[in-house]
Amino acid sequence: MRLVNLNNRFGIAVEDGIVDVAEASGGRFGPDPLGVLSQWHEFREWAASAELGAGKPWTAQDLGSPVPNPRQVFAIGLNYRAHAAEAETAAPELPAVFTKFPASIAGPDITVTLPPEGNVDWEVELVVVIGAAARHVAPEDAWKYVAGFTVGQDISERKRQLVGPVAQFSLGKSYEGFSPMGPYLVTLDEVADPADLALSCTINGEEVQSGRTSQMIFDVPALIAHLSSVLTLHPGDVIFTGTPSGVGIARNPPRFIAAGDVLESSVEGLGTIRQRFKQA
Amino acid sequence: MRLVNLNNRFGIAVEDGIVDVAEASGGRFGPDPLGVLSQWHEFREWAASAELGAGKPWTAQDLGSPVPNPRQVFAIGLNYRAHAAEAETAAPELPAVFTKFPASIAGPDITVTLPPEGNVDWEVELVVVIGAAARHVAPEDAWKYVAGFTVGQDISERKRQLVGPVAQFSLGKSYEGFSPMGPYLVTLDEVADPADLALSCTINGEEVQSGRTSQMIFDVPALIAHLSSVLTLHPGDVIFTGTPSGVGIARNPPRFIAAGDVLESSVEGLGTIRQRFKQA
Repeated sequence: MRLVNLNNRFGIAVEDGIVDVAEASGGRFGPDPLGVLSQWHEFREWAASAELGAGKPWTAQDLGSPVPNPRQVFAIGLNYRAHAAEAETAAPELPAVFTKFPASIAGPDITVTLPPEGNVDWEVELVVVIGAAARHVAPEDAWKYVAGFTVGQDISERKRQLVGPVAQFSLGKSYEGFSPMGPYLVTLDEVADPADLALSCTINGEEVQSGRTSQMIFDVPALIAHLSSVLTLHPGDVIFTGTPSGVGIARNPPRFIAAGDVLESSVEGLGTIRQRFKQA
Repeated sequence: MRLVNLNNRFGIAVEDGIVDVAEASGGRFGPDPLGVLSQWHEFREWAASAELGAGKPWTAQDLGSPVPNPRQVFAIGLNYRAHAAEAETAAPELPAVFTKFPASIAGPDITVTLPPEGNVDWEVELVVVIGAAARHVAPEDAWKYVAGFTVGQDISERKRQLVGPVAQFSLGKSYEGFSPMGPYLVTLDEVADPADLALSCTINGEEVQSGRTSQMIFDVPALIAHLSSVLTLHPGDVIFTGTPSGVGIARNPPRFIAAGDVLESSVEGLGTIRQRFKQA
């Protein structure tokens, strides 16, 4: 099943459009994606046998992030060996966790204003959406806590990120529009092998990143085990799982996003998100 | 005015107890503190002339964090010069921002389970609660966006915090119960001079930290200006503003919290919070 956030209401993508979850369920589930994710098991049971009827037409620009208001956003740095190498950093021995502050979350098809600092870079990522409260979860049980996946961009301003005695991963990656997600929340059962999905991104049609989720240093079960060893993951929490090599700061000379550029990011089976960039 | 979260309902502390906001307002304001903070101006107007009546009795252990579910938690590292020095780190040229993940938020009087890593340290902090959406705010305007203050402890597990190529401030400070706050949200007008408040903490009655908010490298207006230059601060967002010197890891030999210890943290005019620690 493919779920979307259409004008701030959770919907199910069907062949000819989108069915509103709150309307189709007669109010059993509310319009807020986070509310539905908190009743994930009941929702899946209902959806499996519901008569959904015809969908309403939509365009990508009507969509918000499938989870617009997660309680917690986890992001993993340096989680692909070739990316750690291009960043001239040792591969981490434990997942390198930071946050993308929720004010930076955006839908899948937006225009992003370039901040004045200017060194804006791209990082295509597989994003995991949690579907059940998880604490002290072993890797072999971790998939039970996953609702599904979406495509994310961990857009990063490198000057702000790398300044000072404590690297500013969290703030430098949290400008407005820097955490676009979508277009769909694709449920776990629809993804053949999440441990080996192709992911890539292009700028103005030119491919700049290409990798596979099988290249992660810490795979999705390992990330859920690590995070849940410290704290409780809640339904609707999202995990940006890290990016493969090919980012702009590692090029010689470095390359950053310019006004007018169009960034497209895809994960196999999950779809494509698109950002246009403009000057402030 | 002093506000509390009593059994997950926002209340006003009066002489003989606590008045429930939702009941006293006849439902004009709901029980959720975050909802009231989103209507902060209207709430203050109502509260200024409301007949509150008698309060219900309470104990500190009934209280949750005054904001149990902020959209965003900002925390500032190395924000007192003497603390940066004891951490053997250069004073930052810009605020060093990380997060304490919301799952770590707790009330003011709790028992915390020591994680197996074991190097658990204390950091008393002034916590700022935002009362209006703030974006591109100049320091001289910043106080308009502040609802009030509370006492916070930025409890920190140092092994997890300091491991790896990207310091794990966010995860290492986010174990369950590691972000206690309270007892009150004290409104801005009740605090004579927030730029110069004494703050201190004790372990089993022995003072281990003592400082003044006037020693901050980046004061509260500078922090709001910095954060709001990147993203939007929302009502109910909280800012842990950093800790003065005296933490355990900087001692010779280092000292960490042991099972049975009682940690008490106070900020002048805001009250005291208290954590007991136990083995897993």
